[in-house]
Amino acid sequence: MPAIDGVRLATAAAGIRYQGRTDVLLVLLDPQTAVAGVFTTSKCASAPVDWCRANLKARSARALVVNSGNANAFTGKTGRQSTALTASIAAKAVGCATGEVFLASTGVIGEPLDATKFDGVLANLTEAAAPDDWMSAAKAIMTTDTFPKVATATVKLGKAKVTINGMAKGSGMIMPDMATMLSFVFTDAPLSSSVLQSLLKSGVEDTFNAVTIDGDTSTSDTLLAFATGAAAADGAPRITRASDPRLKAFTKAFRAVLADLSEQVARDGEGARKLVEIIVDGATTKTSARRIAMSVANSPLVKTAIAGEDANWGRVVMAVGKAGEPANRDKLSISFNGIRVAKSGARDPSYNEAEVSAAMKNPKIQIKIALGLGKGRDRVLTCDLTKEYVAINGDYRS
Amino acid sequence: MPAIDGVRLATAAAGIRYQGRTDVLLVLLDPQTAVAGVFTTSKCASAPVDWCRANLKARSARALVVNSGNANAFTGKTGRQSTALTASIAAKAVGCATGEVFLASTGVIGEPLDATKFDGVLANLTEAAAPDDWMSAAKAIMTTDTFPKVATATVKLGKAKVTINGMAKGSGMIMPDMATMLSFVFTDAPLSSSVLQSLLKSGVEDTFNAVTIDGDTSTSDTLLAFATGAAAADGAPRITRASDPRLKAFTKAFRAVLADLSEQVARDGEGARKLVEIIVDGATTKTSARRIAMSVANSPLVKTAIAGEDANWGRVVMAVGKAGEPANRDKLSISFNGIRVAKSGARDPSYNEAEVSAAMKNPKIQIKIALGLGKGRDRVLTCDLTKEYVAINGDYRS
Repeated sequence: MPAIDGVRLATAAAGIRYQGRTDVLLVLLDPQTAVAGVFTTSKCASAPVDWCRANLKARSARALVVNSGNANAFTGKTGRQSTALTASIAAKAVGCATGEVFLASTGVIGEPLDATKFDGVLANLTEAAAPDDWMSAAKAIMTTDTFPKVATATVKLGKAKVTINGMAKGSGMIMPDMATMLSFVFTDAPLSSSVLQSLLKSGVEDTFNAVTIDGDTSTSDTLLAFATGAAAADGAPRITRASDPRLKAFTKAFRAVLADLSEQVARDGEGARKLVEIIVDGATTKTSARRIAMSVANSPLVKTAIAGEDANWGRVVMAVGKAGEPANRDKLSISFNGIRVAKSGARDPSYNEAEVSAAMKNPKIQIKIALGLGKGRDRVLTCDLTKEYVAINGDYRS
Repeated sequence: MPAIDGVRLATAAAGIRYQGRTDVLLVLLDPQTAVAGVFTTSKCASAPVDWCRANLKARSARALVVNSGNANAFTGKTGRQSTALTASIAAKAVGCATGEVFLASTGVIGEPLDATKFDGVLANLTEAAAPDDWMSAAKAIMTTDTFPKVATATVKLGKAKVTINGMAKGSGMIMPDMATMLSFVFTDAPLSSSVLQSLLKSGVEDTFNAVTIDGDTSTSDTLLAFATGAAAADGAPRITRASDPRLKAFTKAFRAVLADLSEQVARDGEGARKLVEIIVDGATTKTSARRIAMSVANSPLVKTAIAGEDANWGRVVMAVGKAGEPANRDKLSISFNGIRVAKSGARDPSYNEAEVSAAMKNPKIQIKIALGLGKGRDRVLTCDLTKEYVAINGDYRS
């Protein structure tokens, strides 16, 4: 991962919950950094989500503090005190206003987060922060993730080269109505916060919003984007309107970073052994295609069949049927990894169980559903449902 | 199970899919038997569901043929031919019109059902049919069920004693939008088909419709009710209006049978070790309470936590939050088996992990969620999500 002018990172082990690993990330941002964010649609949002929402109005950021091990969600008044104290410790260490500090927490719900643990730690991190250790940053925010998730893109803005770096954590409780549990994207491009917000909003629709692990939307989903503007020194134009034509290549690169991160989240779903791509076309509208794709992606019966490497397309039919969207049984066709198994509402005459079974051994499974009704098309990513998912979520409290 | 005048049953092993067990049930109904039914809301309903829907208009039934091992769903034109042939074989054996034959099939989706297997079998069953072997009937319709499900009630209608017998099969692919996969209820009460339909429609709302195993709605959900009217000979009044006050005790008994059967379906969910009752009160409306209860009941994270005997109420908060219904985090209280764990948006001050952990060992878990907003209340039944569910659905094609 390349460095981004105006961004420095540092991590520490503050002993929030885990032993022997880092659990706090501090990101320092140069003055004038624009910020934008999208958050969980949960009615029971966490205290840090409330905090960020309130601070977004200021439109500029100097610091991001992320901890794993405790989500500071459903912690009532204590939770609000905890976010205020964390921001105050960070603001003092960094030398900024508390309104310029953004917070995100992930981990167990309902246990008070002892913010005094950040005392001293954040001051040390401010000293230690360096531009290049993105992988350590991505590791510090993990919970049940099995690998750190980062993505980068470099693109021209005007005549200047600008960089976009992102990181994410996912794993469980993932069916973001807008974003994955935690994801942070940074760029040195000189974008206003309204441009950044617009890029985020349109960018998440077919990336993070099109991913589901278990249909469970977290209380803490947070996707923040930061633009330091440092590339202005290299001649990058200052962009203040989302419709600016010079933004075209950047928009594409920005979406590619979001798509890369969200695919990593799907691939690393709790207990997952397979990445599953569900493509619906021929629906009446894109919204209808999305609902049908999500119905398939969240079906425990479809997901367990894929874990068992069984092309049980009958369960796909079931999931299409229960979605409540227009569908005509007798026009429906289904394929697994390019092999058509069902056509016009019945088993494909050329169906060959051995051929399909071989294809199901692939670590990536694509299910394509052709409804034959209209031009609505959409794509959703998910993963299989394995005994390990049950073990991860039934055998210990994450 | 007592006999019901006008109802005779017989079962056979027709070798539809399973070896060494019965897989066909024939129920013979005396002439003038009223019939009513509710079916899956799936847009990809099975051929037998289409068949029954069309025949309900006739409002009278002489025979019910049920097979397990093959759902005759997503079988296209072949499926329609198969239902027509089955009905024709049955009509000939029984001596009735094909329009008086009702059909239900459960098992694998997408494989043609060879109806010629019923040839001879149904004629033999017509000879063998007897009034009393309800348990064998309930066994013949099982797929992954671990026990046959029957329920009975006896009640006064006018001055006569009438009986209601029911059977059901469930297990997986169960989140009926109106009924469980297959359930059949019989009575000797002289009810018109419109009265019976009205009883069914209002009766399923808080029984079968309030059960979810995995959120997956089957293509084949069918609940049929048959009233032979034989009790008229004992002086039971003929009821032709749903609002008839003489129906009061019968309605209560009818609902009790539906409630008993649907609870058995929840208890016997695939891989289930625990029956889970979710009660939501203080919601803005009953509909809102139902949606929140279903969101909790279908959350894989809540269900795996219960399998792990972990009172992980944070996941209950998550599931309430994602339901999209009015909820105020800071008014929310949650209890497990009568022990309050969360109060006013934070952990209950008297929370005692050891006490709660002990309660979670119970085979029945009640989660009570108090929203503190209004008077809306509802109750949903489900089960836990275990590694066995994944094994049952990933390791073989049911």
